[in-house]
Amino acid sequence: MRRVLPGHGASRGSALGRARMRLPHVLDVAEERIDDVEAELERLHAAIRIVRSDMHGLRERLHGALAQEVGEFLDLHALLLDDPELLHGLDELIRTGRYSAEYALRLQRNRIAGVFQDMDDAYLRSRVDDIDQVIGRIHAALHRRPADLQGVAGEILVTDGIAPAELAQLQSQGVMAVVTTGGSTLSHSAILARSLHLPLVVGVAQALSRINDGDVLAVDGGSGLVVVEPDAADLRAHRTRLREQARERKQLNRLRREPSRTLDGVDIKLWANAESREDVADAHALGAAGVGLYRTEFLFLGSSELPDEEAQLRAYRDLVLGMTGRTVTIRTLDLGADKADRTGLTLDHEPNPALGLRGVRLSLARADLFDTQLRAIARASGYGPVRVLVPMVSSREEIVAARARLQRVCRQLRDEGFEVAESIPLGAMIEVPAAAIALPGFIHALDFLSIGTNDLVQYLLAVDRNNDALGELYTPLHPAVIRLLHDTIRSARARGKPVAVCGEMAGDAAFVPLLLALGLEEFSLHPATMLEVRRAIRGCDLGALRARAAALLRMRDRAGIEGWLREC
Amino acid sequence: MRRVLPGHGASRGSALGRARMRLPHVLDVAEERIDDVEAELERLHAAIRIVRSDMHGLRERLHGALAQEVGEFLDLHALLLDDPELLHGLDELIRTGRYSAEYALRLQRNRIAGVFQDMDDAYLRSRVDDIDQVIGRIHAALHRRPADLQGVAGEILVTDGIAPAELAQLQSQGVMAVVTTGGSTLSHSAILARSLHLPLVVGVAQALSRINDGDVLAVDGGSGLVVVEPDAADLRAHRTRLREQARERKQLNRLRREPSRTLDGVDIKLWANAESREDVADAHALGAAGVGLYRTEFLFLGSSELPDEEAQLRAYRDLVLGMTGRTVTIRTLDLGADKADRTGLTLDHEPNPALGLRGVRLSLARADLFDTQLRAIARASGYGPVRVLVPMVSSREEIVAARARLQRVCRQLRDEGFEVAESIPLGAMIEVPAAAIALPGFIHALDFLSIGTNDLVQYLLAVDRNNDALGELYTPLHPAVIRLLHDTIRSARARGKPVAVCGEMAGDAAFVPLLLALGLEEFSLHPATMLEVRRAIRGCDLGALRARAAALLRMRDRAGIEGWLREC
Repeated sequence: MRRVLPGHGASRGSALGRARMRLPHVLDVAEERIDDVEAELERLHAAIRIVRSDMHGLRERLHGALAQEVGEFLDLHALLLDDPELLHGLDELIRTGRYSAEYALRLQRNRIAGVFQDMDDAYLRSRVDDIDQVIGRIHAALHRRPADLQGVAGEILVTDGIAPAELAQLQSQGVMAVVTTGGSTLSHSAILARSLHLPLVVGVAQALSRINDGDVLAVDGGSGLVVVEPDAADLRAHRTRLREQARERKQLNRLRREPSRTLDGVDIKLWANAESREDVADAHALGAAGVGLYRTEFLFLGSSELPDEEAQLRAYRDLVLGMTGRTVTIRTLDLGADKADRTGLTLDHEPNPALGLRGVRLSLARADLFDTQLRAIARASGYGPVRVLVPMVSSREEIVAARARLQRVCRQLRDEGFEVAESIPLGAMIEVPAAAIALPGFIHALDFLSIGTNDLVQYLLAVDRNNDALGELYTPLHPAVIRLLHDTIRSARARGKPVAVCGEMAGDAAFVPLLLALGLEEFSLHPATMLEVRRAIRGCDLGALRARAAALLRMRDRAGIEGWLREC
Repeated sequence: MRRVLPGHGASRGSALGRARMRLPHVLDVAEERIDDVEAELERLHAAIRIVRSDMHGLRERLHGALAQEVGEFLDLHALLLDDPELLHGLDELIRTGRYSAEYALRLQRNRIAGVFQDMDDAYLRSRVDDIDQVIGRIHAALHRRPADLQGVAGEILVTDGIAPAELAQLQSQGVMAVVTTGGSTLSHSAILARSLHLPLVVGVAQALSRINDGDVLAVDGGSGLVVVEPDAADLRAHRTRLREQARERKQLNRLRREPSRTLDGVDIKLWANAESREDVADAHALGAAGVGLYRTEFLFLGSSELPDEEAQLRAYRDLVLGMTGRTVTIRTLDLGADKADRTGLTLDHEPNPALGLRGVRLSLARADLFDTQLRAIARASGYGPVRVLVPMVSSREEIVAARARLQRVCRQLRDEGFEVAESIPLGAMIEVPAAAIALPGFIHALDFLSIGTNDLVQYLLAVDRNNDALGELYTPLHPAVIRLLHDTIRSARARGKPVAVCGEMAGDAAFVPLLLALGLEEFSLHPATMLEVRRAIRGCDLGALRARAAALLRMRDRAGIEGWLREC
């Protein structure tokens, strides 16, 4: 039966596919009321029948040693499942409270668990686990996936929330779109979904109770509408949207050779964040100014051997040659205990790896390692223009020490007869709040700056950006972020130092007006979203935006900043 | 034989006791050259003899099933120990390189391990572990502790470095003083040692090679001198220092009834950080203005049951009654995944608990919990003046939400017939950098502020303050810290809002001139160091210090700020 569930479009694109439900734990089910009591009761009873038949089937298939052990549990669970108190209580909750079957399960579970937990006997108390298993089985059966569906490829994930870290993995597994009950269109997950071009609809309140595993969904990440079991007209509309998207991509592609110029004629520099050979080719084809961020961690991960100078030189030289004369910015190692590192360079069990021995701290503590990397970079500079970018700088002392090492390495290489560029600009990632605040005291020691908004926001707000439990707390739309971005960009421009933003913020067209208003004229972003950002820039009047900067800086909270953005 | 080892006094006080060596892992031994080759060889050979005799003794005592299993390893180790290559190599390194025995062990270990690691056979490669065990045994034997010494009580710990988190525990185990080869006098560990009144000498370069387990040491945390095997004159000097310290304590005690007034007549408010009944009594006796920080976590830790309203009320009311009319500041729950929590409130495995669901975030996510705490605090306000302090605030929205809940709770309690103070001031911990930076946008929503420098420094610098590997990177002496302290204090004063610093910085007399120069007029600190801070305040000329604030704000690095402090 066709149903339309409204939500908010968070990442554009249309998808048609089967629903794949990811249910929250029964204890996390949100309260929900239903209208049709009889239908809900039938849903519940159908689920219980499924569980009963499952358990019967399982019992039959058991044999040998396992039968004894597992069998006892299954018998106990079957007993619990037939417990009239459990069943009657559930019916009662749905009838009198008009609760959804899911929420009734949660309430009934807590009621029974309470009785068990009050018992004196430790064994009986531990039986709460069995209650949970039975309740969990019924919960899962409410959304039972038809047995003929396997795998997730070509499916649409329906869930209560999605962690930023999951998105790329889901896409690589073939998930075509994501629908969530919570979330917002400017969340970190939404930003990532847009950069992955993965359609995302958030805030679909009824998604978990009104969609079942295997239902066919038509999802529109633009309008935010989710249609369950679409009819002929829906399918037609879906095809129309796909055609429109193809047309839009074609139009976007026409921007490949166009400048990134604002309406009032100011050219904005777009650098590429490049990691792979393909990225470099794309950066080139899209007319990027050069590579604004080349992360070197991949050379150090996944192997227990450290890459030597020659191995690093090969990688850096390929990059330089690939960009045929455009500048390449190589970031020195930013390993931390949070990355899957087998080199033994990082510490095993830092309690807070994000606040640990990483970036320039590790490089300065391991001078041999740092020198090897600087030598390889300096040798690559013989093949084309190269800049060195140092991550996690928090003080003047660190940049002074890094420059001394770079200079020494260049001298040595020249003595050894290598060709090294006359000048290798040295810059710092501005991502530790202390560096942004103390910048006036050491900006003279820098040749250029790159603002890493991902980490900067994380430290400024003290919010781990990969911690799902913090939900919407991670956001660049905070007055303190706006203030530090503004101050950093202004400091750099006042002293004629090039400054770019290289975090995810720079790759999201939604933030273009905000960054332009703050004075930014260099963006560093993944090639995947470069044309969209270019289009957004071409639609902006820089003069008008800068005139509105003061209003932006006066905003006292997220709602105010979002309101400012909406008026752009 | 008497030896004097010079270092830097980091925490005053004298101690006389036996040395307890804590050696670094042999792979972390620093390079050290020695003068007397023959003596060093004899040291090494004596150690090897000890290991050989140990292993022989161990082998003899083995019996039963264990004999077979463990015996094989011991035999292998005995074989390795007698390996002429190992022994000859060590002698050679000491003779030709003039290395300390410890460093020779490290070099030789790496040499042999390299040979093993290059082998094709996985079994042989894994034998590196055995090499490490044998080398480790010799290393430990170099500083062998006489068998008659047990426990650490009344001893002086000698180590390469000390983590802040260890200090309190060591003191409670009876350690009288700590001597380290590394470290600095303004490190986080030094600050903590001073607040614990635990003598600490840092930078004693030769401590690990020139002191042996059980040596008698006379340590002077003032001058930084460590005397090994003190003679009669040293013992006399030690007694003299103890007398001086007693006299000083007496003089300090005279300050109990004196005001915390600067030379130019400005009264500074000293609040107490109180956790226990004793703290409250001390705060009272020392003439504290009130309790500036009462942490409520202890009520929630160590039990799987959450404290109910009555249990919390009892604790808060005792505190209020104990302060007999002076204001008490109760901080709402600041649980995080890093605290030993059995309530199940916090998340089990946050990758970065310091950046996780803690403080006001947890309180707002768990409204039931927050309301219960606010009700207990509001009811306690019926017995005396109470302020509510909210931790981990990062935005205006959070303080608005917290105030709404507090007001609702107060209304409900009055409706229920409880006595609630007419006004309960609501304040925020300023410890998340975003809150400090965005403060002008929400300071009107606060009744008072308390700057939590411990966390503020940690987030600003992105340095975990309990991560030993980061060494001296954690420091309040950073231009960004100075800048934010200055801006926060100035914002608060401009709007007439009381502002205190309640981190460890406020409890260390060394930082008094700096905080006064920045405009601070309220300190919140543990009673243990209140008299020292009062004495420091009484020695300061506030006008002169404030005149030097501009110079402090111009400092570009730690060295500059330390220089400024030295001139005070």
